[in-house]
Amino acid sequence: MKALMMNTQLMISSILRHAEKNYPNQQIVSVTADNPRHRYTYTELAKRSRQLANALEGLGAKFGDRIGTLAWNDYRHLELYYGVSGTGMVCHMINPKLFPEQVNYIVNHAQDRFLFVDVLVMPLVEALHQNFESVEKIIVLTDKAHMPKTSLPNVLCYEELLAQQSDNYIWPEFDENTACGMCYTSGTTGNPKGVVYSHRSTLLHAYAGALPDATNASNMDVCLPIVPMFHVNAWGIPYASIMVGAKLVMPGPKMADGETLQDLIENEKVSYSSGVPTIWMALLDYLDKSGKKIDSLKVASTGGAACPRGIIERFKYDYDTKVLQGWGMTEMSPLGTLFSLKPGMQDLPDEKIIDLQAKQGRSVFGVELKIVDDDNNELPWDGVAFGALKVKGPWIATGYYGMSQVPGSEGCPVDEDGWLNTGDVATIDPDGFMQITDRTKDVIKTGGEWVSSIEIENAAASHPLIAEAAAIGRYHPKWTERPLLIVVLSDGAELTAEHIIDYLKDKLHKWSVPDDVVFTDALPHTATGKLNKLALRNTYKEYQFS
Amino acid sequence: MKALMMNTQLMISSILRHAEKNYPNQQIVSVTADNPRHRYTYTELAKRSRQLANALEGLGAKFGDRIGTLAWNDYRHLELYYGVSGTGMVCHMINPKLFPEQVNYIVNHAQDRFLFVDVLVMPLVEALHQNFESVEKIIVLTDKAHMPKTSLPNVLCYEELLAQQSDNYIWPEFDENTACGMCYTSGTTGNPKGVVYSHRSTLLHAYAGALPDATNASNMDVCLPIVPMFHVNAWGIPYASIMVGAKLVMPGPKMADGETLQDLIENEKVSYSSGVPTIWMALLDYLDKSGKKIDSLKVASTGGAACPRGIIERFKYDYDTKVLQGWGMTEMSPLGTLFSLKPGMQDLPDEKIIDLQAKQGRSVFGVELKIVDDDNNELPWDGVAFGALKVKGPWIATGYYGMSQVPGSEGCPVDEDGWLNTGDVATIDPDGFMQITDRTKDVIKTGGEWVSSIEIENAAASHPLIAEAAAIGRYHPKWTERPLLIVVLSDGAELTAEHIIDYLKDKLHKWSVPDDVVFTDALPHTATGKLNKLALRNTYKEYQFS
Repeated sequence: MKALMMNTQLMISSILRHAEKNYPNQQIVSVTADNPRHRYTYTELAKRSRQLANALEGLGAKFGDRIGTLAWNDYRHLELYYGVSGTGMVCHMINPKLFPEQVNYIVNHAQDRFLFVDVLVMPLVEALHQNFESVEKIIVLTDKAHMPKTSLPNVLCYEELLAQQSDNYIWPEFDENTACGMCYTSGTTGNPKGVVYSHRSTLLHAYAGALPDATNASNMDVCLPIVPMFHVNAWGIPYASIMVGAKLVMPGPKMADGETLQDLIENEKVSYSSGVPTIWMALLDYLDKSGKKIDSLKVASTGGAACPRGIIERFKYDYDTKVLQGWGMTEMSPLGTLFSLKPGMQDLPDEKIIDLQAKQGRSVFGVELKIVDDDNNELPWDGVAFGALKVKGPWIATGYYGMSQVPGSEGCPVDEDGWLNTGDVATIDPDGFMQITDRTKDVIKTGGEWVSSIEIENAAASHPLIAEAAAIGRYHPKWTERPLLIVVLSDGAELTAEHIIDYLKDKLHKWSVPDDVVFTDALPHTATGKLNKLALRNTYKEYQFS
Repeated sequence: MKALMMNTQLMISSILRHAEKNYPNQQIVSVTADNPRHRYTYTELAKRSRQLANALEGLGAKFGDRIGTLAWNDYRHLELYYGVSGTGMVCHMINPKLFPEQVNYIVNHAQDRFLFVDVLVMPLVEALHQNFESVEKIIVLTDKAHMPKTSLPNVLCYEELLAQQSDNYIWPEFDENTACGMCYTSGTTGNPKGVVYSHRSTLLHAYAGALPDATNASNMDVCLPIVPMFHVNAWGIPYASIMVGAKLVMPGPKMADGETLQDLIENEKVSYSSGVPTIWMALLDYLDKSGKKIDSLKVASTGGAACPRGIIERFKYDYDTKVLQGWGMTEMSPLGTLFSLKPGMQDLPDEKIIDLQAKQGRSVFGVELKIVDDDNNELPWDGVAFGALKVKGPWIATGYYGMSQVPGSEGCPVDEDGWLNTGDVATIDPDGFMQITDRTKDVIKTGGEWVSSIEIENAAASHPLIAEAAAIGRYHPKWTERPLLIVVLSDGAELTAEHIIDYLKDKLHKWSVPDDVVFTDALPHTATGKLNKLALRNTYKEYQFS
């Protein structure tokens, strides 16, 4: 039986309409290349987003067209989020820090018709321009006075373009499953792959992410997203914070600058901020050095990489700021899990609470999690069993742009039962706290047991004379695979393989202790600083246990 | 362009699955006719809901069938909410306090195949049984020991029925626009009308209602819904509180019993409760009399009727409990607006904050509000202009069961532009706080001005010798309508019409002052205690201003 409820579609434009009516004077503060402190209100955001919609249609852009952005976190990028998606076009956020050939690939693969580019990114665009296959115009995100000199044809000035437009525009309502945005994810192999978000997925993600036991987003908050808007929609903050009516503070290109961040936090009274651990490390180091404060900051949320315990402790004990660790993926919009306490846990000793904060968090309502073994059997939530982590829910990808959407087929990340393979290996404890223990491709499978390469590496790295260590699985005639440890010693140190193996014996399960140790001068890393295990497996392809 | 996101449907069963995995030991405490304090966990709720699903299918109930409930707030009714809807059947919650002929009409109109009935409601069912056209079996919500003697055929015992069932049941996934529940709304005229909720509308309503600036629902909460589960899904609490993992406390038939409510609040550490103003009055009176406390109760939410200022003040000053006034309708699932402060308002003096709490609140994200004049022109949010209140959103009805769904047509509450006519007249202030000033059918339209009948009545009631007053519009040759005041004097009082009109002159706009006053011994009221203006307009049908 069909219900008799309005078929109102979940539209990103509804956020803007609600914001303008209910919080017309709420502020948005930005750092941009042309203004160290730009300040305006939701009313102006809404008005200029409508002008942008008119400008896009004036340029000939149509429903479904991809509009690329190469930009930092500021109000103009925010106008693109709303103005582009609101019309039914697709806001394609591109990471300008990728390798130039990746940026080039992405622009052509998405067939972007227009590119909106920060002044600081113009040199990159100039270098790549002749290889762009679909781009008709470049719009520079600045005003006339700050327009860069450029030899490129078809370049427009954003502020001049907007100034010519009427701010009358009625946001259309259309199918909520329409694409609103795209982000490409780049792994260690192959070309970047495009994830395509919908209006529906974005709104559901905003609702779930704002809940009290998730980010607890309120109109009383002042929110500083330090995670870039080209990284999975800045974790959804540009949507959720405006949905709830919060003040938004945008650091522009000053993402990793402790001084600017501290200044923004103190002067704008930021209560909630989000960034990767590296950013927090930079801020904490700046605070230590300068002796400055961040009294207003109640919550620092983090993700993208495991958060070192030291960051949680420094925030807590030195600044009374709670670290909210979460986990997600580009393919997940990104929110999957977030730290939150359960009844009774408030009374745990600090150390125990930090133990929980150091895990990746509990699933937000809307995302189903499971861990499975090699045969896809679900494993218990006992905090011990670890298996491949799979997820399901309305803001999770079914596949990549231009690739197979058939579950279980080559190139599709979703299995035949409809669960996304995250590529992570994890444990889940009886309270639902999930902890990533490895990547599925790095886990070492030996005689029926799964061994976490990261666990071995952490144990090895605890040795005072070991600078860095990597563990990979290599073929073993009896156990299929056994761990091989590759070690970089500290300057001047001398250790034998036997000594290291001995050292690890009381730190690891018997079956996790490496069978051999080899020494090297340096380990290979990816562009984002992670160990490149693929390269290592290649280097030690021919290695054989004796 | 279509997005590439999972088409996961929003299903009520997903709440139960999430709850069981993430909060297996969270408690549900109930008062029932057969147990003053029943206590179990989410695990048992989930297990028994699956047993119920098997039982329903065993009885021959099918996808889309209406399953009626005549029951109070307890765990068995909760199992019906989840067990019935989870299968794709429709949980039809019936108010046992309606006139028997209305209950009869509703059961037949919905074509309920099975009725699940509280022991206390069995006498009503026995009286009506022979008129039921579609009911095949009556299931009494109790165990074998407490089964009432009955002459009815086809009566089953709920606990016996469940005990025979397996708890293996996989909740199916189907179109989220499928009906999950029904509530009939009864006005002053005509037959009750059925509102049909969907899985989608229910989940979106739960997300929006749980947000920090709405009810702020967390797994740390202990939630006591005193609003009955047959009144618009107990305002959605049975869904939202389990979605977030809160402890649930259900008062069973003891809804208006101050002693039971205080005992539940204190002993179960209730932090959040919801009820109509009459309930709060009963609780506050009991507390005053007994000297008992409700220290754990942080929030008392209220709706269904304007909350008297005295209730807000008594809760605040005597018990440090915040009153959260909201507004909604059966047609709105019900949530439309809720009290919440905006930045800066925390520092307002208490009196100003209470002024805001005494309004009906601000729109939650997902519900769009507007006020319009006679020509459907939108009126400003200035706190002065008042007009017909219209709403739109994904948990708002398109029409009533078995009646026209064509916008703008007879019997359909939605206008041609897709907005629901609420039947209320309201102002909205620049901060978005909405205040109901009248019902559209009661407002008096005089010479182009709208006059609130309630405003006149409140002004008249402030006279120490007036016991009660009602204002209605009557035909006037020049002004179309003019206000006529109908007054009940206090015992022994004597006042003239001229004196009363004089008294009102400095309290009302010139055009709002009644042209005449007539006296009567008593005013007619509806079953729920409101003035029956329809009856009054009928009584004074022939009245003519001289």
